[in-house]
Amino acid sequence: MGLFKDQGVVYKPVEEVDLGPKSDHVYLRANVKAPRMAGLLVKIFTWFLESRIFGTILVYILKKNNLIHKLISNAQLEESPLYVPLHPFEDLKEQEVKCIDSKLSPPEQIQQAMDCLPNSSQKSLHGLQPSFQHWTILDYSRAYNLKEITPRMVAERFIAAVHESSNPPLRMSFFIDYNAEDILRQADKSTLRYEQGKPISILDGIPIAIKDEIDCSPYPTTGGTKWLHKVRPCTGDASCVKCLRLCGAILVGKTNMHELGAGTSGINPHYGATRNPYDISKIAGGSSSGSAAVVAAGLCPVALGVDGGGSVRMPAALCGVIGLKPTFGRIPHNGVLPLNWTVGMVGILAGTIEDAFIVYAAMNGQLPPDQPTKPKLYFPLLNPTKSISDVKMAKYAEWFNDCSDDIRTCCSQALDKLQEHYSWKIVEVTIPEIEVMRLAHYSTIGSECSTSLSSHLEKLKPEEIGWDARVALSVYGSFSSKEYIKAQKIRNRQMQFHMKIFAEADVIVSPTTGVTAYPIQDDASETGELDYINGAALVRYSIAGNFLGLPAVTVPVGYDKLGLPIGLQFIGQPWSEPTLIHIASAMQAICKPEYRKPEVFYNLLKKD
Amino acid sequence: MGLFKDQGVVYKPVEEVDLGPKSDHVYLRANVKAPRMAGLLVKIFTWFLESRIFGTILVYILKKNNLIHKLISNAQLEESPLYVPLHPFEDLKEQEVKCIDSKLSPPEQIQQAMDCLPNSSQKSLHGLQPSFQHWTILDYSRAYNLKEITPRMVAERFIAAVHESSNPPLRMSFFIDYNAEDILRQADKSTLRYEQGKPISILDGIPIAIKDEIDCSPYPTTGGTKWLHKVRPCTGDASCVKCLRLCGAILVGKTNMHELGAGTSGINPHYGATRNPYDISKIAGGSSSGSAAVVAAGLCPVALGVDGGGSVRMPAALCGVIGLKPTFGRIPHNGVLPLNWTVGMVGILAGTIEDAFIVYAAMNGQLPPDQPTKPKLYFPLLNPTKSISDVKMAKYAEWFNDCSDDIRTCCSQALDKLQEHYSWKIVEVTIPEIEVMRLAHYSTIGSECSTSLSSHLEKLKPEEIGWDARVALSVYGSFSSKEYIKAQKIRNRQMQFHMKIFAEADVIVSPTTGVTAYPIQDDASETGELDYINGAALVRYSIAGNFLGLPAVTVPVGYDKLGLPIGLQFIGQPWSEPTLIHIASAMQAICKPEYRKPEVFYNLLKKD
Repeated sequence: MGLFKDQGVVYKPVEEVDLGPKSDHVYLRANVKAPRMAGLLVKIFTWFLESRIFGTILVYILKKNNLIHKLISNAQLEESPLYVPLHPFEDLKEQEVKCIDSKLSPPEQIQQAMDCLPNSSQKSLHGLQPSFQHWTILDYSRAYNLKEITPRMVAERFIAAVHESSNPPLRMSFFIDYNAEDILRQADKSTLRYEQGKPISILDGIPIAIKDEIDCSPYPTTGGTKWLHKVRPCTGDASCVKCLRLCGAILVGKTNMHELGAGTSGINPHYGATRNPYDISKIAGGSSSGSAAVVAAGLCPVALGVDGGGSVRMPAALCGVIGLKPTFGRIPHNGVLPLNWTVGMVGILAGTIEDAFIVYAAMNGQLPPDQPTKPKLYFPLLNPTKSISDVKMAKYAEWFNDCSDDIRTCCSQALDKLQEHYSWKIVEVTIPEIEVMRLAHYSTIGSECSTSLSSHLEKLKPEEIGWDARVALSVYGSFSSKEYIKAQKIRNRQMQFHMKIFAEADVIVSPTTGVTAYPIQDDASETGELDYINGAALVRYSIAGNFLGLPAVTVPVGYDKLGLPIGLQFIGQPWSEPTLIHIASAMQAICKPEYRKPEVFYNLLKKD
Repeated sequence: MGLFKDQGVVYKPVEEVDLGPKSDHVYLRANVKAPRMAGLLVKIFTWFLESRIFGTILVYILKKNNLIHKLISNAQLEESPLYVPLHPFEDLKEQEVKCIDSKLSPPEQIQQAMDCLPNSSQKSLHGLQPSFQHWTILDYSRAYNLKEITPRMVAERFIAAVHESSNPPLRMSFFIDYNAEDILRQADKSTLRYEQGKPISILDGIPIAIKDEIDCSPYPTTGGTKWLHKVRPCTGDASCVKCLRLCGAILVGKTNMHELGAGTSGINPHYGATRNPYDISKIAGGSSSGSAAVVAAGLCPVALGVDGGGSVRMPAALCGVIGLKPTFGRIPHNGVLPLNWTVGMVGILAGTIEDAFIVYAAMNGQLPPDQPTKPKLYFPLLNPTKSISDVKMAKYAEWFNDCSDDIRTCCSQALDKLQEHYSWKIVEVTIPEIEVMRLAHYSTIGSECSTSLSSHLEKLKPEEIGWDARVALSVYGSFSSKEYIKAQKIRNRQMQFHMKIFAEADVIVSPTTGVTAYPIQDDASETGELDYINGAALVRYSIAGNFLGLPAVTVPVGYDKLGLPIGLQFIGQPWSEPTLIHIASAMQAICKPEYRKPEVFYNLLKKD
């Protein structure tokens, strides 16, 4: 019965694993055994992979070489499987938060959120001064209220900017779809409300873009494909989009994404490779590539993404914006493509943490009726002068340092500043089996994605799917129920490890990605590319947020030698968004003076 | 991409399915395509199944023919997967229950339980009169207190009876292990307590047998195998056993079971086929075969089993005893072999519903600390004269009638009596896709079982496993992650169907099994037998209890033409054990006068 079997690891019981800084646990670097491929090579590889006999052997070799057999499939571990990272809600004990009546409407929730923000400085509309910063929701709202500009004017500028950026020479591939008429119609209504002195909320007239994985009328939801919207027609706004619409936001279109969310580069063979506003020869990261890029490029203060394996945080970091992924279950998931069920969550991309917080406030708590416990809503009381005191940040040095030199230096400096300015403490820890968690998460998201799509895929012609997505789907569809369930056992282990670490620290701190934006190569445009080495480096720090349902935020903290943005990530305890927002706000306040303007940037609020 | 694919069913959205009696839903009978096999045939079949090439083809054909491809693997359905049937706890609104302080110890909980029981009639110890009935816990307790007999005497009689029943001509194969010395030691301590007038609880001195799937010192936990206890040593009592020991019960040994719980006949090639006390040529049912048989044979008033797919209720019905399977999560599961994680629950086999209730009272609510919500404890106030009023029983006629003629007649008569005596109402309903649920449950329990055992199985020699278990494990190990996840989507559908039915009715009523005890054939003793047709008939009514985590109880209501017992099952809403116990008590009160004495019966309380 042991024939053809790769020996599996025998995992130590959780209680025997030392999580302290001097643990004998050996940090396992990603052991990706797959060379970069693009163009004809991807096609040949795909043909082999999809053939019944060669495919089976090839997938076997891939899984074996990438240690999936050893670390997951044949592993021996006593934990029960943990299938869904739902956390029981506990009342917050913190001082600097405000408990919100959960019966409020989205506009009312936003009003409460605004009361938690400090009075920001009176910023001039004549330019972005002193250092670069994005126009914020508050800037728009103030300009609308002062009648310096109208939502109609912003919409027109937006449309012109998208037009320009979509065409040569830029070809940014920000959007999969946008409808000028629909945008102007919304803008006109908003303009009228401001004329009548009756804006619905501070979001009234704010342009917000939506990842094309989330339903938003009147657009089809393609998921970055050429076919998914045909078999799954969009029948109305997703719950989260509904909240934003109720607040008066202008929904400006569907942003580009990695096909089916099955990759991290944002190179989409059907809708183009989303380009990074900081350097248009580089990727924007993915899969929420367009949502990150439009915020970076000044087209919207905020955009929505979906984060199933870092898909909000990675492009946010690569494009120099905020990426906030709330706790699993915090934001209703109806109307989001069911590409997976246990790892993906709606997330927010924004120019500032305050803007992310406002949009979070509009959407959170609006849970579907079948949710067993509706968590109480707490908002952080943001106050940059009197910031949250005595934060303990867990840092696993070997993991933290497993990134490019520039990222390591930059993120370490950001941490130093935090300790300097706020006297926060670093707790050195060991987080075991992080690479195992990445593989377990991969088996999980892959199994769920291929199950979700299976009945559709059968009816498709292979040509309708991009080459790199076909490769992903071939591997996704190869997992056995044993591999899936073992991955859920790993999930249980990791949950225990993380909860033990959270008993010692408020947050876990790490870089957001292991590499900064890398070049979009010519051979990738038609076929996409397979670059699992860069892929593994991109997702290195993301997985706990998804696999364990923990909230996480990335804050831009600097740039590499080429001027490409670098993000620092804070992973929080379940339901601790208020703390995370506090911390991100403190981090942002320190780094803001150094923020740089992207190469491609549209200043929609400038005076004519 | 559609090559080699069997067309999958496209399921209607739940809200479009009519659950009324005139629904156009077509009842699908079990479509088992697998002939009975035993002896050499099983061996040949196993060899083929375990070969790499033939095995793959054979499993493919089995799954195709048994409609797993059509109804599960390739099915198209929009529901999200529901992985674990955990129900949020709601406070009971019923009148005739008593809320119990959840901080009580097991003996205190039992005392509260006793207060809920009516004062039973003063029964004479000189015989079982007027009709046959088992000696109950109360009978033992009264006899001990009146010093008519001592626990030591009962233990001695018990040991003699087990000895006799284990040997020719009976060879009942009730137990896998029992230790006379350990039993007598416990009995002596209990005797001493009675002598001192200080019994711990009403369970003091009561002989209770434990299925060999549950840890109980000083025995190894074999799971019906020859090897599992070697790789997973028993380190102490399971939580549920601990509760009973705390109450003073005498734990009298480990009962026989179907190997690994992977079958329903109770024919174990290593420890013998458990024989039915009503007819020793017949099976006892399984997998908790020994636990049901020892209660029927009068060796214990109560025994514990584990119910992963009817494994408590089926043998209870076949042996003419009560089988109670509480809500998923009600009784702590630590110390039970992890043969699955989402369908199995500890259950109780007892001669009377009152005894099942007392033992339930001792074990329930003693949840492990990681349980998110500790449900409140409610006990039913049992009163046969003033019984619970106005019960609505959902009945799906086509399903109810899909059983042998004798069972159909007997169960229908029992229902008639309930309507007559208590004016309870029957609500005619349609429960769709019951056969689909059976297949989805099979994929689930199979995947979980093979995952749980995988690292052990690799190291075993095939000869160490029984032939029929090897066949089961081959199929169990064949499921893909897609099949597993699709099964969980079916679970979500069924949960919705059942919750809609529970909006109209208090319980669902059905026979417990589709057939009564069938013969143990000679060719099965060495190899076990494969009899999936009888197997499917046995589990026909069990699945919702496991797959949806619902509480359920079987009550003996009569006999077939051969004198073999028949059970009627009530499936309750989540956490509604008090209601179920009420109902079972009412049913039992009506049927009790007709209870017959088994062919093999030991009267441990008789006066010398």
